[in-house]
Amino acid sequence: MPRYAFRLEYLGTPFNGWQRQDGQPSVQQALEEALARLDPAAPRTAAAGRTDTGVHATGQVAHADLSRDWRPERLAEALNHHLKPLPVAITACARVPDDFHARFSAIGRRYTFRVIARRAPVVQDAGLVWQVRHRLDVQAMRAGAAHLAGTHDFTTFRAALCQAKSPVKSLGPIVIEALPYPAGEEFRFHLSARSFLHNQVRSIVGTLERVGAGAWPPERVAQALHARDRAACGPVAPPMGLTLTGVAYPVDPFA
Amino acid sequence: MPRYAFRLEYLGTPFNGWQRQDGQPSVQQALEEALARLDPAAPRTAAAGRTDTGVHATGQVAHADLSRDWRPERLAEALNHHLKPLPVAITACARVPDDFHARFSAIGRRYTFRVIARRAPVVQDAGLVWQVRHRLDVQAMRAGAAHLAGTHDFTTFRAALCQAKSPVKSLGPIVIEALPYPAGEEFRFHLSARSFLHNQVRSIVGTLERVGAGAWPPERVAQALHARDRAACGPVAPPMGLTLTGVAYPVDPFA
Repeated sequence: MPRYAFRLEYLGTPFNGWQRQDGQPSVQQALEEALARLDPAAPRTAAAGRTDTGVHATGQVAHADLSRDWRPERLAEALNHHLKPLPVAITACARVPDDFHARFSAIGRRYTFRVIARRAPVVQDAGLVWQVRHRLDVQAMRAGAAHLAGTHDFTTFRAALCQAKSPVKSLGPIVIEALPYPAGEEFRFHLSARSFLHNQVRSIVGTLERVGAGAWPPERVAQALHARDRAACGPVAPPMGLTLTGVAYPVDPFA
Repeated sequence: MPRYAFRLEYLGTPFNGWQRQDGQPSVQQALEEALARLDPAAPRTAAAGRTDTGVHATGQVAHADLSRDWRPERLAEALNHHLKPLPVAITACARVPDDFHARFSAIGRRYTFRVIARRAPVVQDAGLVWQVRHRLDVQAMRAGAAHLAGTHDFTTFRAALCQAKSPVKSLGPIVIEALPYPAGEEFRFHLSARSFLHNQVRSIVGTLERVGAGAWPPERVAQALHARDRAACGPVAPPMGLTLTGVAYPVDPFA
């Protein structure tokens, strides 16, 4: 059974997340139904990041074992044909070794969270951003974010239902871009780690937004982290601003 | 009757363009219906650019005469409330002199056209870009575009139904950005002029796409321009890639 890896782009809006659940639309189900149209064995898939309801991806990675050999470009085109009209696309496809696993072989995940600060409703980027109606101080948010880079117990920034064995994670430096946006300002939070806890990115962004709004001094982020207490976290940011942008492997399967 | 100017952002997708037409949804109708909820005189509006079906805006400008005085911020909030859930937002509002006219006072219009070159279907920006499935050579497109800047008879790049008195227009330099895009490349064409002919931007972008694809040498753009013949134009680019990004006035009403 030859194994293939796929890079996927999707809008999270119409899906109850990546993971297959009875009676709920999921990206995994969409991909597996497209695979079933091509392969009588109806291959199952596994993905690097089990994105939540409403979370988007431009660089999700999944793998599946197929019954026969395919030219990767041909397989991607056939899957994209069967995925229509759902907002899911295969943007890269490659034959990979049998021991490649989209989730367990991954050594890094990258997420981007978009926040638009403006009074007027967001129209062009509706569903892709979190809108706040007040100004945000990017220097304060950067000062707050600096407390989080490195290896820490992230219990504060972890969902109650998180299944990870350990709350200790190593977070790369959080890069916060401030960009012009019509009648407002856009902030892009870029986070990277080997792996993340459940809701970690949204918990961090929601906390940093409180700092940007002036409700929290930046040092309170360090206090929240050291508290190792979910109750010390700021509000969790909504899912629609979040996109899984990339997954890293020891050898890039798509290079 | 105090006069107010509005800056508007909208998605063109659900509308048959700016202009009010019987039995067809239009942005003008949406704005005038929202105004009618606030003002018993049901004010009529005029806009700087009568965008076509499917064309978007981040910087459209319109004006209307209202029966009473409003605080501009309050008027914008009230209109945004009544515009919901349509993808139209007032992003700026100002009291203007009685001789201000959104269309006739304008001294410049700016448009941006987005093209994505990649094989896989576009998901995140669906409806906001024109997708082509082949590579585009940005240097060739820039060489072709250089023939169009300046004052010319643009008959070649004008829709048959264009109502402008003269086909002579003065086009600013066309700036073409090449940007990274997941699994592909994005090209943003920025065009500016005092005013444009009907379909001029889409005719120019459609022609330059042929140059980028290698089907036309860049010099053929100059030949097409000098032919002053609609038949010499390349294919007209589709509307969904086009956004009216700004309108210039001798005095910025929103400054």
